[in-house]
Amino acid sequence: MNENILGIIAGVLTSASMVPQLLKVLKEKNVDDLSWVMLLVLISGVSLWVWYGIIKEEWPIIISNAFSVLLNSILLICYFIYKK
Amino acid sequence: MNENILGIIAGVLTSASMVPQLLKVLKEKNVDDLSWVMLLVLISGVSLWVWYGIIKEEWPIIISNAFSVLLNSILLICYFIYKK
Repeated sequence: MNENILGIIAGVLTSASMVPQLLKVLKEKNVDDLSWVMLLVLISGVSLWVWYGIIKEEWPIIISNAFSVLLNSILLICYFIYKK
Repeated sequence: MNENILGIIAGVLTSASMVPQLLKVLKEKNVDDLSWVMLLVLISGVSLWVWYGIIKEEWPIIISNAFSVLLNSILLICYFIYKK
């Protein structure tokens, strides 16, 4: 299989798997299950993957991890808005 | 920065961010927050990233995604053991 198509399918699947948690938090306005420390660690990690993708010029890695940075940043913002 | 060192740091951070959820599930034996559909989607996605890493011969991608396959497979097994 072409490696870019493989990377895009992989990226769509791993990105899609994160969406329900965001929708749940937005809908229920409940962030009890989130840890801001872990979100920060995750955002740092996926940001470095974006950097890695830029160095290696691999678009599937850049796009899927940039999406993850965006989604987890929204979760982090939700955490500080909705925390009790 | 050397791209392999960058990838290893990125992989350690993204892998580390998943461990607390597994520890919580193992400790509390509560899988109410898990969705087996999303776990299957995620495992499929990270498995394809392992395949992508093998094709591109990029060890940081292979190792970090293989760890994610392992961890999420354990979560999936926990789901079917602990579900009510």
